[in-house]
Amino acid sequence: MNELALVDRLRGLSGKGRGVIRGIGDDCAVFRPKAGEDLLLKTDQLIEGVHFPKTMRAGTVGERALARSLSDIAAAGGDPRCCLVALAVPKNKSERWILAYFRGLLRLAKRTGTVLAGGDLAHDGKVHCSVMVVGAVKRGKALTRAGARPGDQIYVSGRLGKPWDRKIVPRLALGRKLSGKATACIDLSDGLSLDLHRLCKESRVAANLENVEQIPIVQGASLERALHGGEDYELLFTLPPRTKQLAGTTRIGTIVRGRAGTVWFKGEKLAPRGYDHLTSK
Amino acid sequence: MNELALVDRLRGLSGKGRGVIRGIGDDCAVFRPKAGEDLLLKTDQLIEGVHFPKTMRAGTVGERALARSLSDIAAAGGDPRCCLVALAVPKNKSERWILAYFRGLLRLAKRTGTVLAGGDLAHDGKVHCSVMVVGAVKRGKALTRAGARPGDQIYVSGRLGKPWDRKIVPRLALGRKLSGKATACIDLSDGLSLDLHRLCKESRVAANLENVEQIPIVQGASLERALHGGEDYELLFTLPPRTKQLAGTTRIGTIVRGRAGTVWFKGEKLAPRGYDHLTSK
Repeated sequence: MNELALVDRLRGLSGKGRGVIRGIGDDCAVFRPKAGEDLLLKTDQLIEGVHFPKTMRAGTVGERALARSLSDIAAAGGDPRCCLVALAVPKNKSERWILAYFRGLLRLAKRTGTVLAGGDLAHDGKVHCSVMVVGAVKRGKALTRAGARPGDQIYVSGRLGKPWDRKIVPRLALGRKLSGKATACIDLSDGLSLDLHRLCKESRVAANLENVEQIPIVQGASLERALHGGEDYELLFTLPPRTKQLAGTTRIGTIVRGRAGTVWFKGEKLAPRGYDHLTSK
Repeated sequence: MNELALVDRLRGLSGKGRGVIRGIGDDCAVFRPKAGEDLLLKTDQLIEGVHFPKTMRAGTVGERALARSLSDIAAAGGDPRCCLVALAVPKNKSERWILAYFRGLLRLAKRTGTVLAGGDLAHDGKVHCSVMVVGAVKRGKALTRAGARPGDQIYVSGRLGKPWDRKIVPRLALGRKLSGKATACIDLSDGLSLDLHRLCKESRVAANLENVEQIPIVQGASLERALHGGEDYELLFTLPPRTKQLAGTTRIGTIVRGRAGTVWFKGEKLAPRGYDHLTSK
């Protein structure tokens, strides 16, 4: 199947709406923003042999590629609108593989109201995807990493220490609830110790994880993995003191004054040892 | 240099403005659209060994990665606002290479008013870039491939048949002039024969290239290369009959009735033989 024919097939799978007034088939997609909204922009890569094994099913790769970017939209308190998909595949991947990839991606896209608005196809030695998502949030209401204040309480959603290949469920509903409430938010993609360090650094505060028993751990996972493992895709956020806790979330500590980025755990500094994309294997 | 330190350096190179109210350093970039504007979204890949040789200088790779997406913004008649850059590099590429890549990209970004708003870094076996650009155009004024009508005159900017590694100069000023004037527009990234076929297919018309002498060819290039070579990054567009020609453009033919996508050249059908990303080497 050549590119023209494949683009025709993908066009049939893609859609309009959610602000997208022109989708696949033109030089650019055209998006019409709503008055009173800010847009959230995010791109993320998913690379064979780095982020997933060669043997992963095409549909799972497609779903995962979108889910990672959607998790960032959730962390900003946003509502996804559309995505652009850059996909490179080896020559020996069939049109069937490419279509299965897009079907997997589109299942999640439909569930979350994300329109496939455009993309780019190329050949490469292995599968390489970059998915760019556009989300929307009420003007001035985007959650950032930068607003946590001493005294704020630190929460996480779900449980930590998941196996890396567990299905990613972007916490979009929780993110929307947090918009206007949370003082800071980040998604846990690289591990609690590193992502909490990042949140504290941006907010110019420190954090105290008061008690090991408070950290919600997946059954069978070690504390080590819950603290330093990546790929949890839960939300880590801060609420002002005396704010009501939300269902499905656990309080794990308190924002304190101190050197920006320091995380205290059982009276000792916790080194940010999560997944660093440039120094890790 | 680890990712945290590098992101700090890149943050120093990136900026705000042009609608970007939060850039690098958060889960998402935040973009505030202007009232009365549609947004143009485009992503494009640039892969080592496919689109450029291993020996290409880092700054040239960075500039080229952005220029390709900007050329699509030009074809839609838009004004670039910001970009997100997904970059994968082999472990043996130094921080110096990554910074030089971004400096090359940012030189073009500054010249064109494009703010670096976000990105993603990863390791891979070879260099792989995806650059996503957000552009803006007056509401309802985006140029598309779909509006050419029989009788419209076909034009190209500049000269065709350029060597593939020639510096790409996105035709942004021309694109803005064409917004509201041209009936259809596409950028010549994959060759005249294929891109004119695409424009005609979307517009449900045919084209007649009346005269070989009319096609503006780069000195030293063959007609074959001008017709079927890719990477020219000029604009191919249609104007209603009796519209004044624009400086730096050449009339090469006429839109005619016929099977959607057919291109006639010297009385014969011209096969779309440009660069197909999935069937070419």
